[in-house]
Amino acid sequence: MLNSNSKVAVYMEGHIDSDYGKMGMGVVRYLKNPIVGVVDKAFEGRAMKEFINISRDIKIYGNLQDVIDQGAEVLILGIAPSGGRIPESWNPIIEKALEAGLSIVNGLHDLLSPKWQKKIKSKDQWIWDVRLPQFTPAIATGKAASLSNKRVLFIGTDMAVGKMTSALEFYEDLKKMDINVGFVATGQIGITLTGNGIPLDAFKIDHACGAVEKVVVEQADKDVVIIEGQGSILHPGSSATLPLMRGSCPTHLVLCLRADKKVLRSPENIKIPDLKKFIALNESLVSVFGVYPNAKVIGICTNTSMLSQGEAESYIKSLSKETGIPVTDPVRFGVNEILKVLLKD
Amino acid sequence: MLNSNSKVAVYMEGHIDSDYGKMGMGVVRYLKNPIVGVVDKAFEGRAMKEFINISRDIKIYGNLQDVIDQGAEVLILGIAPSGGRIPESWNPIIEKALEAGLSIVNGLHDLLSPKWQKKIKSKDQWIWDVRLPQFTPAIATGKAASLSNKRVLFIGTDMAVGKMTSALEFYEDLKKMDINVGFVATGQIGITLTGNGIPLDAFKIDHACGAVEKVVVEQADKDVVIIEGQGSILHPGSSATLPLMRGSCPTHLVLCLRADKKVLRSPENIKIPDLKKFIALNESLVSVFGVYPNAKVIGICTNTSMLSQGEAESYIKSLSKETGIPVTDPVRFGVNEILKVLLKD
Repeated sequence: MLNSNSKVAVYMEGHIDSDYGKMGMGVVRYLKNPIVGVVDKAFEGRAMKEFINISRDIKIYGNLQDVIDQGAEVLILGIAPSGGRIPESWNPIIEKALEAGLSIVNGLHDLLSPKWQKKIKSKDQWIWDVRLPQFTPAIATGKAASLSNKRVLFIGTDMAVGKMTSALEFYEDLKKMDINVGFVATGQIGITLTGNGIPLDAFKIDHACGAVEKVVVEQADKDVVIIEGQGSILHPGSSATLPLMRGSCPTHLVLCLRADKKVLRSPENIKIPDLKKFIALNESLVSVFGVYPNAKVIGICTNTSMLSQGEAESYIKSLSKETGIPVTDPVRFGVNEILKVLLKD
Repeated sequence: MLNSNSKVAVYMEGHIDSDYGKMGMGVVRYLKNPIVGVVDKAFEGRAMKEFINISRDIKIYGNLQDVIDQGAEVLILGIAPSGGRIPESWNPIIEKALEAGLSIVNGLHDLLSPKWQKKIKSKDQWIWDVRLPQFTPAIATGKAASLSNKRVLFIGTDMAVGKMTSALEFYEDLKKMDINVGFVATGQIGITLTGNGIPLDAFKIDHACGAVEKVVVEQADKDVVIIEGQGSILHPGSSATLPLMRGSCPTHLVLCLRADKKVLRSPENIKIPDLKKFIALNESLVSVFGVYPNAKVIGICTNTSMLSQGEAESYIKSLSKETGIPVTDPVRFGVNEILKVLLKD
């Protein structure tokens, strides 16, 4: 859908500095397209650099009209409100964008097409409901296990702990090393960035393993397949890890977590257990005593953005000693040490 | 939807003796309504007793008209073809049933209402698409763990190993004992039988834990809650066990399996691992080292219908010795021994 030359604007009204802005932040960090600006009135006139570790200059504007004036051709809705519903207050924005001829990328469960498709004015304009499953898969049979490539699945202690970011860092580095590598996006941001993948959380329980299996098996010709993870077996509201494990039959796991968290972000009454035990449980579940490949956690990716450089280095050293495997902050220190383990394995 | 006095017929054309007839067999075994007949041309004139261990007389007829003549008011589609699609060949049956004024219960993913609702002729006639989720839940928070009742979740080595049957046997026995017991149906058969519950496999991955949590928390006033299980963590195509665990936060588990199976029914290349290890893995996953209640597998329900009485007794004895917990065939020998453990616990 999204042509790599199209000029993009990102709508993040009220959420540049909130957890609900994850979609927008992912786009700002990783999308290769020209980004003409981000919309969030509260931070009008400032730059995205102040909020996220990026090198390019992306300005923040107060109104949709500003980014239209900057030449935006595509508006990406960069906010994911709780529950995935589209707030009423967005309707005038969507209408104005469509009237101005912009295409729209929507990553929410709520679909735009049914209501807004009639406002499309030309064949070059479109609405992309990224979260809409595009096929009904067959029941999975575990056939990803018979592929001869390496399949790396990113798991987590929680939601929103950097599974997508880590997976993308692995993917980018492997490409730079001229490795024949594929990326399986499983969430709305990864799909928006790559133009491929599955909105796993929008698939029915009955179809989830099969959907993962289909897109993983399509990467049979890649030597390494990076599979974006979702959720956590620890989280009371998360079902995504098991179908990712069964559908992809990974050969390697990478655990993602936030450096400052002893409990889940929400609900906070749930403590993150001892990491060595938690790793062992994930490894048992993925393999079921050798029924599936014996994937091991080969490294930990941690988000240390809330720590100073010195604190981060010391935390990483201590966590690596505790768990006996390489630990890194992929954005801050790169993923080289874990890649070495993956490639020599 | 289904009034308990309504006269029911079950459509099982071609599948009385096949695995795809599970919905019909469940209805025949457990539905309290008067059942005027089952439709399957191949076995016309015979009785359901010959195919399933039941005491009541239910005749098999060759045509829909025969059961209409017998006074059927509701037609239950008793077959679940692979993939959950409604075959084209059923269209004349559905049309004829609706024209004759019958209501229809449909347990397939494919919905009847969109196409057939217009054929409804009176306010007493209806189409019940059992597999259609009736609500969008909030993200689960694990609050079932704070209930003070016993919550028994049925898990399995495979799909179709008797989780629903076992759960219903527990429920019926507990009711007879005047225990204040609730039943949470999670599949189309259980919903049809009880008029309540959730079609778990039709919920989105994002909503599955929340859907389970909602219906379990609604049973807060029950002393014991029986939760129908779905799927298996062993099966490559099954995602349902994890949301059942997280949504219900069970206090007890019961493992279900088929006596004659060393491998999955499909795909057959997947071996069922050592049961003690498999039980331990399920127990680790359900509790995550005490983050959630430390539910243990308190018994095993096995389907021994393919064994002689003597073989079944000997198999059960040996499995109980191997695992150290009570084992039974719930249909053949009842669930008394496991109930004793549950109630004294």
